[in-house]
Amino acid sequence: MSEITSQTRDELLTTALALADAARPATLAHFRDGALVADNKHQDGFDPVTAADRDAETAMRAVLARLRPEDAILGEEFGFQPGSSGLTWVLDPVDGTRAFLSGTPTWGVLIAVGDDAGPRLGLIDQPFIGERFLGGFGEAWAEGPQGRRPLATRAPRPLSEAILFTTFPEVGSTAEAAAFGDLAGRVKLTRYGLDCYAYALVALGQIDLVVEAGLQAYDIQAPMAVIEAAGGVVTDWRGGSARDGGRVLAAANAEIHAAALEVLSRAPLD
Amino acid sequence: MSEITSQTRDELLTTALALADAARPATLAHFRDGALVADNKHQDGFDPVTAADRDAETAMRAVLARLRPEDAILGEEFGFQPGSSGLTWVLDPVDGTRAFLSGTPTWGVLIAVGDDAGPRLGLIDQPFIGERFLGGFGEAWAEGPQGRRPLATRAPRPLSEAILFTTFPEVGSTAEAAAFGDLAGRVKLTRYGLDCYAYALVALGQIDLVVEAGLQAYDIQAPMAVIEAAGGVVTDWRGGSARDGGRVLAAANAEIHAAALEVLSRAPLD
Repeated sequence: MSEITSQTRDELLTTALALADAARPATLAHFRDGALVADNKHQDGFDPVTAADRDAETAMRAVLARLRPEDAILGEEFGFQPGSSGLTWVLDPVDGTRAFLSGTPTWGVLIAVGDDAGPRLGLIDQPFIGERFLGGFGEAWAEGPQGRRPLATRAPRPLSEAILFTTFPEVGSTAEAAAFGDLAGRVKLTRYGLDCYAYALVALGQIDLVVEAGLQAYDIQAPMAVIEAAGGVVTDWRGGSARDGGRVLAAANAEIHAAALEVLSRAPLD
Repeated sequence: MSEITSQTRDELLTTALALADAARPATLAHFRDGALVADNKHQDGFDPVTAADRDAETAMRAVLARLRPEDAILGEEFGFQPGSSGLTWVLDPVDGTRAFLSGTPTWGVLIAVGDDAGPRLGLIDQPFIGERFLGGFGEAWAEGPQGRRPLATRAPRPLSEAILFTTFPEVGSTAEAAAFGDLAGRVKLTRYGLDCYAYALVALGQIDLVVEAGLQAYDIQAPMAVIEAAGGVVTDWRGGSARDGGRVLAAANAEIHAAALEVLSRAPLD
């Protein structure tokens, strides 16, 4: 599509913040609620869908109907709705449903908007902590209990000094787990299970790498925009685009990205 | 020692809150600080000691010198200081130093006070979120972004419906990891890497089990008091006292504790 005008950028930024504001009460009404019911979306695995997921996506779609009715929407809960503007909002109302069900405040609301070239603006929101990470259109900031601060990824360092996060060992095929294990054996510290919050830590300059597999577009588009705006690099495990999900490598900078990619590239994946 | 008087209980409660208040600025001054330096306490492993650890324990010891000068102190950073009251404060200024270094808000300040019978009062504080969990002397509550609410552990359910947390697979010997794996294979959901925050989730009624190995007394005494006050059970992997650390099994209720203990008891540990 054609270049996004300055007025449209402002509208998209305002809309992204309105979406995150709408999702906060919708998710928090169900967080740590003893009566929470977890459905099983897939019979073959543990993939709970909560009332929070549905309520938050419904609330966000209502905001888009009001503020950006001509944009398309791809949402984790209610699928794709076509638009005419050339722009698509990609929404994951609760990324980290297992964290949500466990009461852990590391789940998040993911909001991205982009065009054929990929996500242009992304927002990660953690409603319980009251923490928000935004990147795109020249902005890159975090806002939370300690106020607002600019986002900037870490400076390059050797792989042996890097901090790596993932949702593994729970996720991924045997070959994917082996490739991840090879990388994990070369870094200083590996930590597990933070879902989208791990991507926020890359953008904050706290950690160097996040490696995941089996992602959907709505899992990665918002983190991708936030990390790239903060100076990082996000690709798949072969260096291609990560915008459609699958195997994702998020890195603080080009140097650590190249070092991690070299290890992951050796893995014999289908 | 003799029964703790009502006046002493009030003093201990007031002191525990004052300790947590003193540790908050001392830890937050260093959290997500780019200049943070991580020393290596043990040459054979990754065990960073931060300025936050030292500053927070120093601040807490100053509070005790003022409010409870006759109590003994066991602190993670500065060791044991004898007392004459029969009561000992057990302090871990930053439990989860790896989480702290990574910028993850799941580390905590652990404060416990007890006598020969074990911890009587415990407090888990998460300064960044502004969340506090207290249990003992008839109190059991959490206070955070959503206000104050009573703590109560989950009702009994089959092991196959349980949520299990641990810091594994990073921690523990091969035999310990195998025993944990046996248990993990029987529950509905296993999550990793939350340090002390996982114990808070048991007290909140969000999860059923936490299983750890290699703990110190200062890692477990505060969580133990909080969980017991909320209705849970905390022992070692053989059903004995967990007050000195080692292998710990924290459970939401006696039924799920018995079911998990039966699995862990079969493990051939030294």
